[in-house]
Amino acid sequence: MEHTKFEKIALIGIGLIGSSLARVIRRNDLADHIVVATRSAETLSDAQALGLGDSYTTSNAEAVADADLVIVSVPVGSSAAVAEDIAAHLKPGAIVTDVGSTKASVIEQMRPHMPVGVHFIPGHPIAGTERSGPSAGFAELFEGRWCILTPLEGTDPDALERLTRFWQACGSTVEAMDPAHHDMVLAIVSHLPHIIAYNIVGTADDLEAVTKSEVIKYSASGFRDFTRLAASDPTMWRDVCLHNRDAILEMLSRFSEDLASLQRAIRWGDGDKLFDLFSRTRAVRRSIVEAGQDVDAVDFGRQATRLPGE
Amino acid sequence: MEHTKFEKIALIGIGLIGSSLARVIRRNDLADHIVVATRSAETLSDAQALGLGDSYTTSNAEAVADADLVIVSVPVGSSAAVAEDIAAHLKPGAIVTDVGSTKASVIEQMRPHMPVGVHFIPGHPIAGTERSGPSAGFAELFEGRWCILTPLEGTDPDALERLTRFWQACGSTVEAMDPAHHDMVLAIVSHLPHIIAYNIVGTADDLEAVTKSEVIKYSASGFRDFTRLAASDPTMWRDVCLHNRDAILEMLSRFSEDLASLQRAIRWGDGDKLFDLFSRTRAVRRSIVEAGQDVDAVDFGRQATRLPGE
Repeated sequence: MEHTKFEKIALIGIGLIGSSLARVIRRNDLADHIVVATRSAETLSDAQALGLGDSYTTSNAEAVADADLVIVSVPVGSSAAVAEDIAAHLKPGAIVTDVGSTKASVIEQMRPHMPVGVHFIPGHPIAGTERSGPSAGFAELFEGRWCILTPLEGTDPDALERLTRFWQACGSTVEAMDPAHHDMVLAIVSHLPHIIAYNIVGTADDLEAVTKSEVIKYSASGFRDFTRLAASDPTMWRDVCLHNRDAILEMLSRFSEDLASLQRAIRWGDGDKLFDLFSRTRAVRRSIVEAGQDVDAVDFGRQATRLPGE
Repeated sequence: MEHTKFEKIALIGIGLIGSSLARVIRRNDLADHIVVATRSAETLSDAQALGLGDSYTTSNAEAVADADLVIVSVPVGSSAAVAEDIAAHLKPGAIVTDVGSTKASVIEQMRPHMPVGVHFIPGHPIAGTERSGPSAGFAELFEGRWCILTPLEGTDPDALERLTRFWQACGSTVEAMDPAHHDMVLAIVSHLPHIIAYNIVGTADDLEAVTKSEVIKYSASGFRDFTRLAASDPTMWRDVCLHNRDAILEMLSRFSEDLASLQRAIRWGDGDKLFDLFSRTRAVRRSIVEAGQDVDAVDFGRQATRLPGE
């Protein structure tokens, strides 16, 4: 583990992911010094109250001075601004990585600013919850989760190896992937589900014939499952939609095409077609549980909930 | 509680709902005798092995003889066939109810067969899991859940009161609703979410550019939430789609209209519109948690999952 430890890690952005990193770095002793940077004075003061770092600053430039690992954990639309901030202040030999949910756009925004002699290796830990902000993080967030790195051509193998070991020390299993393929995979497994969840919750919220209180009262019959994803951070998800546009539009168009066909089967009473689809999808859940990517418990292992006053 | 107890309850159908009823009736001593009926000899033998009833039969007609409460828990498309089976054998004064997810269609299928002097009161407990069959049931399923009754004009108040007390004794809170309104409410809170979940899992399963194993590996980033609903009983959901067609088509059309507008915002980079929607939906989840209809825990309180071999 010795070579895994960094002298100084700069965390740029201290939301759910940044603050979970701060906690696991501390717990597993992965750095001598953690510097926390965020542009919001209020968030910085929250982070300080939580004791997440060894030093704190609202200046990204100041944060990266002397850092041998810089982890950018901001909404992907802010990547270019951060890269501009830090470019002139990076230590030669430093590793710069990020945790953004889209990779081609982050690379396009950051790479032009990265000086020679700095190792820029984009990354994406496949981990999260519906909560956000510095208080939402926890040290176990990355345990048992995948972390995808999308190294660019000519990446220094030692730097890649060191970053890989860092993520492993956080509890993750690391995979390398081409950035464009990453964006396609995430569009279907993450971006489309979030967009669909936001959309259905919006549709329900807009109805006149069914009251909001009815939607809420009877939500345990299915609807509530979607509200978790639809409670995710709006800024983060706005940026994902804007910065993985092509892959998302492709997946949305396939989804809508399939939905139109399903709608037609419902309209014309094609029971066999409905039954075939509804049977096939059952197998997918089984595979996910078998792969250890979801709990085997009924209803996600939710503890029974009670009606108010009971 | 005395008046709540029935002499003989006939359970027609012994899947998730029927078998949960059997268990709670037994545990809370709500009947002197439980007769279990299902047309499948194999399912009946499973129910017998589990000790769910006092007597067992594959004949619906036989089951209802002398029963003072008959609960039909079959896929809604089988309602007419069951009504025909039992009509001539019902005891005068018996209460006949059901648990189907659509009400107008069940009423249309069953009411014409119900003899004078029998109290037909359609119902729908808003409770379930993604599992099915007699072994999937449990006595606590209805606790803290709503049960909607859709009594028809001229319903005997004593019979309604007795059925209401029965569901309360199972742990539910009972609400009365007009059948057409029920079908509209359930279309948005339950039927649309299931159809959307089935559809997105189908779309992901069909991709060529992203492998099935990638979909499964990275499913914790959002996709897995949908697979629970998409693992629900295919026969039950085929029948729901076929028997609540108009309300479902109405909701699907609103959903698709909203999705087209969201897709346009993504295509044209309208970040404000995306941010507005994504912020509004967060409040809906808060209301559901406050109403006691979902757990307050992060990520549904899922226990951490592990990668295989870790």
